[in-house]
Amino acid sequence: MARPPRIDNLQYCNWSEKIFRQMRQGGLDAVHATIAYHESFREMVLNIERWNRWFERFPESIFPGRMADDVRAARATGRTAIFFGLQTPSCIEDDIGLVEILHTLGVRFMQLTYNNQSLLATGCYENEDAGITRMGKQAISEMNRVGLVIDMSHSAERSTLEAIELSARPIAITHANPASWAPARRNKSDAALKALAGRGGMLGFSLYPHHLKDGSACTLESFCAMVARTAELIGDAHIGIGSDLCQDQPDSVVEWMRMGRWSKETDYGEGSKHQAGFPEPPSWFRDNRDFGNIEEGLRQVGFDAAGVARIMGGNWLSFYEKSFGRLT
Amino acid sequence: MARPPRIDNLQYCNWSEKIFRQMRQGGLDAVHATIAYHESFREMVLNIERWNRWFERFPESIFPGRMADDVRAARATGRTAIFFGLQTPSCIEDDIGLVEILHTLGVRFMQLTYNNQSLLATGCYENEDAGITRMGKQAISEMNRVGLVIDMSHSAERSTLEAIELSARPIAITHANPASWAPARRNKSDAALKALAGRGGMLGFSLYPHHLKDGSACTLESFCAMVARTAELIGDAHIGIGSDLCQDQPDSVVEWMRMGRWSKETDYGEGSKHQAGFPEPPSWFRDNRDFGNIEEGLRQVGFDAAGVARIMGGNWLSFYEKSFGRLT
Repeated sequence: MARPPRIDNLQYCNWSEKIFRQMRQGGLDAVHATIAYHESFREMVLNIERWNRWFERFPESIFPGRMADDVRAARATGRTAIFFGLQTPSCIEDDIGLVEILHTLGVRFMQLTYNNQSLLATGCYENEDAGITRMGKQAISEMNRVGLVIDMSHSAERSTLEAIELSARPIAITHANPASWAPARRNKSDAALKALAGRGGMLGFSLYPHHLKDGSACTLESFCAMVARTAELIGDAHIGIGSDLCQDQPDSVVEWMRMGRWSKETDYGEGSKHQAGFPEPPSWFRDNRDFGNIEEGLRQVGFDAAGVARIMGGNWLSFYEKSFGRLT
Repeated sequence: MARPPRIDNLQYCNWSEKIFRQMRQGGLDAVHATIAYHESFREMVLNIERWNRWFERFPESIFPGRMADDVRAARATGRTAIFFGLQTPSCIEDDIGLVEILHTLGVRFMQLTYNNQSLLATGCYENEDAGITRMGKQAISEMNRVGLVIDMSHSAERSTLEAIELSARPIAITHANPASWAPARRNKSDAALKALAGRGGMLGFSLYPHHLKDGSACTLESFCAMVARTAELIGDAHIGIGSDLCQDQPDSVVEWMRMGRWSKETDYGEGSKHQAGFPEPPSWFRDNRDFGNIEEGLRQVGFDAAGVARIMGGNWLSFYEKSFGRLT
């Protein structure tokens, strides 16, 4: 490869031809796209159908990513490979057999929880965290078998630590930052990050303002210095980007993300009554064309070319290599 | 290949380890297995989940067939590749996007009707046949695009002829015989068979007694002489086996096949009140180990080695080659 791969391992945009073109303008070879937050299996299939129509309409920009080699195919053809992921286990309902079906349909990441208690584990907004459930253990084992990556981004501490421990394969926290830098419920303790990396797992740094120090006012320098400190903490082989970019989304979508159908009362999640909608993105990361800013920022805080390349995509590509196939 | 491939292009057995072993004993490199008759999409997914468990439990006997090369992989490893098919369009419900989802899940054949009127076309037991519907035309076009083969085995005459004409790719009648030999509603007119072959389509000869002259008493000689006459009618490049073998099935299953949930009154389909269950198979074709009898019978009626090889699997393999990929 002439230049190193560039991968954003989490986005949930209001997808459009414009955004697909901007992905390529931003040099992205692969994007892990969230396709469900609270959906049932059948509703998730409808979302895949929407993606299939985008793949059919915009083949010059995007195509379905299935295995690590698709990242190379994307680079070779000047396109972006889209890898599907779920921020919820609701799509497997109470049916363990759906884990393999999801993988066949191209899903490559699945969170065991989304903020709340699920059938599998505890989410980061619950008061009590009882850890991985009986079905959760079965799901971890089956996800390991078929090559569906466990993502604990929205999980509570004990559940996160147990998933890392129980999983026979490295897991991911696709979009979060160290809580020691920005103490949000969604950010992760140093203990969890060390355990994650200790088992070969990956952390994707989030650019979502609620996960950033100083929120929307967070500076590129502060963000990149945090990346450097995290590299000191857990090494530079286990970190990448998972921007959580929600480009062009109307505020109705953040309501769906937070509340799905589980509550009649308004839940503001990481927001508040006075800041109920999507937060303003930082000035240096407004859309898919801004990945060059992050790359430059990483150089400024002292990463060498090899380190920058690993963080901007090389580490995720290595993780894809070992994660998406059957356990042999 | 040392010996020619052997393919049975339709079975619906009460699957078990015994039957999977018998497939190999019968020399079968590939079987097209029906996975739904009246099921909704979600119910069909449950049936795929059952198959996934069989694939996991019996990897020495069977594996999922996706493309023609899997037939060669089966031969190379002494196993049988299982290709999924639907005898119904009920699994796409009213959602054209499910056609591509089915293909992603490994489905390679879909009937546009099962005896009754469907959203797509007319079945062979209706009194009126209005031909391919508006959605039927959309489905044919989409099935052509993704590589899902149109199967008109249970369709009425006009619908069958229109599907052959409308489809941009060759279609199949996976399990039926010439009505000129055995005048069952499920068997096909010479006109339909000629139209089918004229567009490159395939006929799979059925061994189901209700499709045979003299039913369960049909002789191997009579069956093979019928194959020879069909080869004279439409050539020997467009015929193969689609046995409709329903090995070890209890009679409750034929009730489901005939009635699904569409009727409160008993419908005997091809049977009758006095012969309501599965008919007795012919003495020379009782299970998956009996394909050698058919091969020998074809030799006896005058087919040379190359002709026998084409009918026993070579023609289906060629058809798989050109049918299961995307339309380019």
